[in-house]
Amino acid sequence: MQKKIEVVKTLLDALPFIQKFAGQTIVIKYGGAAQVKEELKEKFARDVVLMYMVGIKPVIVHGGGPKITELLNALKIPTEFVEGQRVTTKEAMRIAEMVLSGDVNKEIVSMLNDHGAKAIGISGKDARFIQARAKDRSRWGYTGVIEEIHADVVENLMAENFIPVIAPIAASKDPGEPGFNINADLAASRVAVALKASKIVFMTDTPGVLDAEGRLIGTLGSEKIALLKREGVISGGMVPKVDACLEAINGGVGKAHIVDGRIEHSILLEIFTSEGIGTQIVH
Amino acid sequence: MQKKIEVVKTLLDALPFIQKFAGQTIVIKYGGAAQVKEELKEKFARDVVLMYMVGIKPVIVHGGGPKITELLNALKIPTEFVEGQRVTTKEAMRIAEMVLSGDVNKEIVSMLNDHGAKAIGISGKDARFIQARAKDRSRWGYTGVIEEIHADVVENLMAENFIPVIAPIAASKDPGEPGFNINADLAASRVAVALKASKIVFMTDTPGVLDAEGRLIGTLGSEKIALLKREGVISGGMVPKVDACLEAINGGVGKAHIVDGRIEHSILLEIFTSEGIGTQIVH
Amino acid sequence: MQKKIEVVKTLLDALPFIQKFAGQTIVIKYGGAAQVKEELKEKFARDVVLMYMVGIKPVIVHGGGPKITELLNALKIPTEFVEGQRVTTKEAMRIAEMVLSGDVNKEIVSMLNDHGAKAIGISGKDARFIQARAKDRSRWGYTGVIEEIHADVVENLMAENFIPVIAPIAASKDPGEPGFNINADLAASRVAVALKASKIVFMTDTPGVLDAEGRLIGTLGSEKIALLKREGVISGGMVPKVDACLEAINGGVGKAHIVDGRIEHSILLEIFTSEGIGTQIVH
Amino acid sequence: MQKKIEVVKTLLDALPFIQKFAGQTIVIKYGGAAQVKEELKEKFARDVVLMYMVGIKPVIVHGGGPKITELLNALKIPTEFVEGQRVTTKEAMRIAEMVLSGDVNKEIVSMLNDHGAKAIGISGKDARFIQARAKDRSRWGYTGVIEEIHADVVENLMAENFIPVIAPIAASKDPGEPGFNINADLAASRVAVALKASKIVFMTDTPGVLDAEGRLIGTLGSEKIALLKREGVISGGMVPKVDACLEAINGGVGKAHIVDGRIEHSILLEIFTSEGIGTQIVH
Amino acid sequence: MQKKIEVVKTLLDALPFIQKFAGQTIVIKYGGAAQVKEELKEKFARDVVLMYMVGIKPVIVHGGGPKITELLNALKIPTEFVEGQRVTTKEAMRIAEMVLSGDVNKEIVSMLNDHGAKAIGISGKDARFIQARAKDRSRWGYTGVIEEIHADVVENLMAENFIPVIAPIAASKDPGEPGFNINADLAASRVAVALKASKIVFMTDTPGVLDAEGRLIGTLGSEKIALLKREGVISGGMVPKVDACLEAINGGVGKAHIVDGRIEHSILLEIFTSEGIGTQIVH
Amino acid sequence: MQKKIEVVKTLLDALPFIQKFAGQTIVIKYGGAAQVKEELKEKFARDVVLMYMVGIKPVIVHGGGPKITELLNALKIPTEFVEGQRVTTKEAMRIAEMVLSGDVNKEIVSMLNDHGAKAIGISGKDARFIQARAKDRSRWGYTGVIEEIHADVVENLMAENFIPVIAPIAASKDPGEPGFNINADLAASRVAVALKASKIVFMTDTPGVLDAEGRLIGTLGSEKIALLKREGVISGGMVPKVDACLEAINGGVGKAHIVDGRIEHSILLEIFTSEGIGTQIVH
Repeated sequence: MQKKIEVVKTLLDALPFIQKFAGQTIVIKYGGAAQVKEELKEKFARDVVLMYMVGIKPVIVHGGGPKITELLNALKIPTEFVEGQRVTTKEAMRIAEMVLSGDVNKEIVSMLNDHGAKAIGISGKDARFIQARAKDRSRWGYTGVIEEIHADVVENLMAENFIPVIAPIAASKDPGEPGFNINADLAASRVAVALKASKIVFMTDTPGVLDAEGRLIGTLGSEKIALLKREGVISGGMVPKVDACLEAINGGVGKAHIVDGRIEHSILLEIFTSEGIGTQIVH
Repeated sequence: MQKKIEVVKTLLDALPFIQKFAGQTIVIKYGGAAQVKEELKEKFARDVVLMYMVGIKPVIVHGGGPKITELLNALKIPTEFVEGQRVTTKEAMRIAEMVLSGDVNKEIVSMLNDHGAKAIGISGKDARFIQARAKDRSRWGYTGVIEEIHADVVENLMAENFIPVIAPIAASKDPGEPGFNINADLAASRVAVALKASKIVFMTDTPGVLDAEGRLIGTLGSEKIALLKREGVISGGMVPKVDACLEAINGGVGKAHIVDGRIEHSILLEIFTSEGIGTQIVH
Repeated sequence: MQKKIEVVKTLLDALPFIQKFAGQTIVIKYGGAAQVKEELKEKFARDVVLMYMVGIKPVIVHGGGPKITELLNALKIPTEFVEGQRVTTKEAMRIAEMVLSGDVNKEIVSMLNDHGAKAIGISGKDARFIQARAKDRSRWGYTGVIEEIHADVVENLMAENFIPVIAPIAASKDPGEPGFNINADLAASRVAVALKASKIVFMTDTPGVLDAEGRLIGTLGSEKIALLKREGVISGGMVPKVDACLEAINGGVGKAHIVDGRIEHSILLEIFTSEGIGTQIVH
Repeated sequence: MQKKIEVVKTLLDALPFIQKFAGQTIVIKYGGAAQVKEELKEKFARDVVLMYMVGIKPVIVHGGGPKITELLNALKIPTEFVEGQRVTTKEAMRIAEMVLSGDVNKEIVSMLNDHGAKAIGISGKDARFIQARAKDRSRWGYTGVIEEIHADVVENLMAENFIPVIAPIAASKDPGEPGFNINADLAASRVAVALKASKIVFMTDTPGVLDAEGRLIGTLGSEKIALLKREGVISGGMVPKVDACLEAINGGVGKAHIVDGRIEHSILLEIFTSEGIGTQIVH
Repeated sequence: MQKKIEVVKTLLDALPFIQKFAGQTIVIKYGGAAQVKEELKEKFARDVVLMYMVGIKPVIVHGGGPKITELLNALKIPTEFVEGQRVTTKEAMRIAEMVLSGDVNKEIVSMLNDHGAKAIGISGKDARFIQARAKDRSRWGYTGVIEEIHADVVENLMAENFIPVIAPIAASKDPGEPGFNINADLAASRVAVALKASKIVFMTDTPGVLDAEGRLIGTLGSEKIALLKREGVISGGMVPKVDACLEAINGGVGKAHIVDGRIEHSILLEIFTSEGIGTQIVH
Repeated sequence: MQKKIEVVKTLLDALPFIQKFAGQTIVIKYGGAAQVKEELKEKFARDVVLMYMVGIKPVIVHGGGPKITELLNALKIPTEFVEGQRVTTKEAMRIAEMVLSGDVNKEIVSMLNDHGAKAIGISGKDARFIQARAKDRSRWGYTGVIEEIHADVVENLMAENFIPVIAPIAASKDPGEPGFNINADLAASRVAVALKASKIVFMTDTPGVLDAEGRLIGTLGSEKIALLKREGVISGGMVPKVDACLEAINGGVGKAHIVDGRIEHSILLEIFTSEGIGTQIVH
């Protein structure tokens, strides 16, 4: 009996968090290990469905780089890199879209539905939700930068109680064009801003932002971020993550979080426990 | 960290139960120790608010006998009993209503609101929600039996997202009459039937229905109940509880539960854990 | 036949008034003789129901001082007064609430329902509609001043076609507190302001505001009121009534009326006949 | 003061009738003296607006025979009669429609609007609301019998809070045809049936149905009507009125009334006083 | 087969125009030859219904001068003219209204309904949609100028999917007055402004505005219009048409068009083909 | 000018068809040449958008067999056939889904959006819209037969004005399974039945059903079909098409059409011209 009471007490501990976030939109950038390891995938799905059932409105934006590379290799399509960024040829664009919209996206949708959600997969091409232009056609081909987001498309879906799962592919303004491959982190930030989300959570393969001694920093503001960048403490792959966070915060999103997707239930831990587990970026 | 993960795991264990009951109406007959001990009251309130936050629609029906007796005594108003039932004189009726609608009801409403709900207290007199007639005016005075329930009154309130808290007082068909004091258990059953509730839970000061050896019976059907009554195993105060359960079940309510209100969080334990803790009466 | 035609002509005389007030909210502070004498009570109920049937949205706020005193006396609970105001001890607070929410409020609700309305009784505790703080805890105990009114609670009820009947009890910001006893006149004014009412009517035991010669003043503005107060013409119990009127007017309510509740149908006379019968306070 | 109280008492006497008919549709066949004498017209308008303001949904169907004859004469268009019924030539049809839709209808609409209603004039041609066919083209030309009524057209208007004022002109099934002149009494009955009205009132220039001694009969059923017809007590112009009443009753309308339009406020007297003034035909 | 494909291609050529105007309000001033010749009438009706079916919201305002004169003559009612404008006596007013509301209006309504629309005929008297005052009672009698338009009346009808067909008759502010005859062109402009229409089309018996050489001018702005008026190029009956266009444009209507109603399908040609056929007046 | 009038006349010829189908759901099975040739694709898109703009609710179901084979070959994944049906291994299933949901589906969505529609691509996995089970796992692997269709998912999308474009992939009842590849023709039929469509159109690479002499049969009923099958006149690839038509018709769809997708604008020709161009299957 004592065991069962403990269970219920835990439930009740979450009550203030449930009340706090009920009715709010939370954008989750899903990626890294959490998207690869079977066990973590399963847990991610249950986490999102729980959020959905207690009244939070989750929106998922995912990436899928490794699987794209895998299929390109299988098809022996060579990939060139310019300034560290993949050149998206027309052929590669088609492969990227198939992998993102046809494989990764539907896998996430299915996982969520298997746990009782009502998820729907879209890309920026659906109802021209996200429109982009080439970053620099001559150098990176069909790699795009977002020009416009039509939030009403996703809002229509949320009004019908769907969980939107978004692949980072954008429509082109010019008819007949193959569209653009866009950066999933930035897509997530822009979507969060367009939806006036109260939170954006980036799932990464790091514990969060670390200080010079390698200790996790719980909370960060933009000035501190500027300093840490200048000092080289925030560097490498963490820079674009932190920039995506700032883009969201500056666009009006309440808080941005970088959490460790390798830890089970990291999103719920961040949202439903008082201390959180990663780094939160605030205004 | 492990501790926090345990917390989240517990939350997720409740997911199937949340999904199962989301959008459903659950009527709770609140009474006994749970209504008296400060600690249990506090826990009851949190339990109900949690149910409300995860999408369940709770409706509370309460009693209040001991407090009525207390005020009658303080006022030195003598109380007579006929066949074990209190005779409700006009004076006693007024006292009963003041205690039920003006004290007990508002206390429950306040507790729920203090935990973040939007609770509203009504009695059967509000919008003539419950109409009764005298059981036998010459013997028991203003003790009533329910004639009609206008479910739309409570449905109107639920449509505006209120948690209705109902005092067991009924309106009289005859204008100017003081109304009737009605049995809270039967009121709860009738309300559950009128609202097409999926569940009714009776909070009592017993572990549930016990067999001849004093062991808790987990599940009971109407045939078994009839047998246990004939054998005298179900007797005394348990008989009307069980009858109220049967009234609900026969009127179309999915399940009726008798739980031990003396145990912390007994309603959540019954609803959100697979085994439950008391006795469930099924069709 | 001529008699019947007269009847209909009278009905038609009210047509311009019906048209003028259709769809508007009118707050009525119910009290004094109109709340005590059987015949006046009956008439008040019919008046309110008529207003409701012709499209006006009445909201009732009531007091109940004499009945509180009565029960306190019956229970031999001594009452102290400081600067002419009752000290509300915790015990007195419980008694006041029982009388107001459990007796007076439900009596009014029942009277209205008996005449075909769909009335519902609430206090400021329901859904924390009115929140107050102590005026001065050390001096007057649980006598409160209003801090906040959540008009949406009453608007929700009006949207479902209920006539709200409001007891002057407020919730406390601090959980577990017994709440506060608030002044019914001021509660009515504040509710009228929060609901953007077009009119507030105070039912009193006086013909209205009288001039130095004891003649009824038909219409009064704030400057004239200030003058009459300085001259001592408005004095005693009329001062708080007039102040409550000014609070309403200054908060945006169209007009405030002080009418003689001892006269049959005084509200209807004030609203549905061109001259009115009491004093109206205008901006 | 006493005078004013009488006024209000009268208002309250109407309360049960207001409650009884609130939200119900009442079709009024307007015609005869009430449509001709200035004073009666004015009173009719106020009566209808009062009904509208207290929540009744009035629908007016009018005739206009005398004015048609007048214009035909002014234009020296000869009118032939076959079996006592006017032969509607194409030319006469055009004149009839101009008088009914362009003069009589708009006059009624204006009168109602002048008293604060929101009236709209239509004929059976608008949105093909009423469709008719020739009774016998070779004998009576464009005199029609109703084939079909599209109640949704009038319901659409009532949904937008209009009082529909209907001219007895019908559309033809064949495009390009001038439409049909239809009997206003029968049009009123059929409209009442199609709208599921609770009452239909025929305003005539008689006190109602009289018995063999010339005394007014208060209430009549279909059997009694059959008898009185056989006996010749109901004869002449009263026969079609009574038949229109029966058509309405048999189609599901609650009650049909024949009232004396020459008496001021006859509709209100019939609806808002207990005895009524004319003859009511019941099932 | 080739023939059928041509048909479909034509349909598709209209697609951009359909997309451009879907959901927009277009006011059409219907008059001249298009209102007289059987074949043109028929075509006008089909044109309007097509617009309606593809999502445009047409509103028709019509005149009817010639038919009024005809009936006045038949009745031998003399007509006087002052400064070229007809003096509307009370008698003439009644005739004008009968012709406009009872004949012309219902004929247009019937034509539209015969082609599958859901048209309803109203005048400014219905629900007091248009209110006017005398231009100069002593000189022109009941010829009115518009004071106020209650757009909500027409919007109510459009919300229920009706095509409103409006006769140029206005209500008077003074009860009992016969109303006013108003200029149909100006009525159309004012209605277009009140409805925030995106377009107004005037159907005339000219090809449009011609330049000094008699060639059609495709597009005109207000400055050019002022110049052409000064030069006398725009003169005679074209002046009030152009002024009505300017009134609409200055009131916020997107574009005004003067088209040749003698040409079959002139409205559709103007709206659904890229070049248009008449003169468009732009801001 | 004459040319332009012809254009408009053509538009008007479509009016009866527009009126006939406005508001109705038409399911289109898109496939064959129409899905491959650039020019035909472009025309198909314009056709669908025109339907959408004139009030028809199109739903697209597509196949994609050739592109699947192409990618399987490029990846050197061998494909086995059993009884003429492809065996869908787990690997092949993943490839099929990527091609269908990630390439073909998004290409159609983009084409429609490029022409001004608001199209959204889904598969049966989205919100578990279509649930299937293995036809025979041991023989054909992940080739599925439809068990259940949740029409509300597509209805939700249509309520928000989306054109749904559906890939023939179904969810599995068992969590974690890769889903099923389903026959697009049957999926279209089942979707049409579930949506209570008034029409289903199959775009094929044949003129329609041919008789023994090779002449096109305009209309066919189920008895005639049974006969032609027995006689071998309907054979080969036409059998499953005709069966899919029968499945739709028997499920309540109004009509099924087999049209030649190689002909430009074949769907519009079938819907908007009186004769149609292919074979229609009727009840």
